[in-house]
Amino acid sequence: MAFTQSFRVRWVDTDAAGVMHFSNFLRYFEACEEEFYRSISLPLTEIQDKYGVLLPRVEAHCQYKAACRFNEIVDVSIRVREVAEKTITYDFQMARKSDGKLAAEGYVKCIAINSDWKTVPLPEDVAEKVRENQG
Amino acid sequence: MAFTQSFRVRWVDTDAAGVMHFSNFLRYFEACEEEFYRSISLPLTEIQDKYGVLLPRVEAHCQYKAACRFNEIVDVSIRVREVAEKTITYDFQMARKSDGKLAAEGYVKCIAINSDWKTVPLPEDVAEKVRENQG
Amino acid sequence: MAFTQSFRVRWVDTDAAGVMHFSNFLRYFEACEEEFYRSISLPLTEIQDKYGVLLPRVEAHCQYKAACRFNEIVDVSIRVREVAEKTITYDFQMARKSDGKLAAEGYVKCIAINSDWKTVPLPEDVAEKVRENQG
Amino acid sequence: MAFTQSFRVRWVDTDAAGVMHFSNFLRYFEACEEEFYRSISLPLTEIQDKYGVLLPRVEAHCQYKAACRFNEIVDVSIRVREVAEKTITYDFQMARKSDGKLAAEGYVKCIAINSDWKTVPLPEDVAEKVRENQG
Repeated sequence: MAFTQSFRVRWVDTDAAGVMHFSNFLRYFEACEEEFYRSISLPLTEIQDKYGVLLPRVEAHCQYKAACRFNEIVDVSIRVREVAEKTITYDFQMARKSDGKLAAEGYVKCIAINSDWKTVPLPEDVAEKVRENQG
Repeated sequence: MAFTQSFRVRWVDTDAAGVMHFSNFLRYFEACEEEFYRSISLPLTEIQDKYGVLLPRVEAHCQYKAACRFNEIVDVSIRVREVAEKTITYDFQMARKSDGKLAAEGYVKCIAINSDWKTVPLPEDVAEKVRENQG
Repeated sequence: MAFTQSFRVRWVDTDAAGVMHFSNFLRYFEACEEEFYRSISLPLTEIQDKYGVLLPRVEAHCQYKAACRFNEIVDVSIRVREVAEKTITYDFQMARKSDGKLAAEGYVKCIAINSDWKTVPLPEDVAEKVRENQG
Repeated sequence: MAFTQSFRVRWVDTDAAGVMHFSNFLRYFEACEEEFYRSISLPLTEIQDKYGVLLPRVEAHCQYKAACRFNEIVDVSIRVREVAEKTITYDFQMARKSDGKLAAEGYVKCIAINSDWKTVPLPEDVAEKVRENQG
């Protein structure tokens, strides 16, 4: 029950060690999350426009296992770990396509807030659709 | 009549060539511009809050002269080139502190827009204060 | 004779004005350039590994025409303007897929350097393959 | 026994929610770490040049407590949690200068590697100097 999206490591993603900068793994996790929402017909723009809800992170974690280099393809997988009243927790893995080696794994916990930046319950529709993809 | 701000090149600014990525020169130009507005007691947040005006770029240009490496200090200078009815053009230079060598020079042209994203004349106060620093 | 690559604007690409930050247009130009090299069977990694040549920018220019927002698709086109002894100049355009509107256009000029960071003539193979795609 | 460095939130650090993007907290943690090394007369460039050692992250974690907005000053503190044979773990906190409110806290674990990207013991000098600042 994981959703996977492939990305190509860009020159701008690298640092002077010749590998992807550690902060960019989290940016690819986020890009994968964006694609996941689209895959369940619930793009984040709709969640914002229809429900007035944003889903900022309250926690992010990443373990780095192997370096990713310029021009290589990485497969990022997202899995729904938990849907609570106000929060969603996602697990991520990033693997190098060339050798299948796990490059990183981590998680993020997102919380629903309204336009006043107050926490709110997840919109029913959002909670339901995300839960359907849990596994 | 130039305003100068020093920055330290961060690890995350570099790329796999071991030098600052070309897009980051423009980010440091922008950071210098932010400090310039503060130096004339007109922080961009005030321009937004008081006049409802944003100043996005309509043009950006940079010539790259020398590489900048991790951990070195760069001196970024901003000079007001032109204040027109709706636009401001700034010239920039970035020099390496260690040897004074010019690393890059360029310019950006900014245009005043309101919250509907329509172009508007520069607020009088903004035009005046920026013009006072022209040279 | 232009090569086009589509990208989806990511949340991290946006700024507090709700639109893609001006520096990121240049990053998408670069990503398109990376894909262009791959499309002519000459990935930049090969240019580095086989010829020991890097192609840093000596000039970058961009005119901003329309804002790009989170989640929208942008079509970036690259066109070879000129292949000289040591330099290649590329023209770029970025259009919003939704309405076809031109969002930005610009150019970059790249120069061939060796591992000592000295300018060198473009490898014959590189110059030839890029020239074949000029138009 | 914590080292603190102040940073000003830049426009480019923000996203369409009007606040600093979650990945940039980790970039400011890293910038603070870079300043910490400099403060103990052991800049990372020297660790690389003298010992041939890099200190990439094997783990990063961040809890987000409050939003940080454009133009505000954030105080980032780093504290040495543990110096092991091959790894160093740092705790971080980021507070908003305006109201002293904790904006984020987290940690990173770094591992010593050589130029072949193999893990190695921390250079004695590095381990010692960092340990002296533990608390």
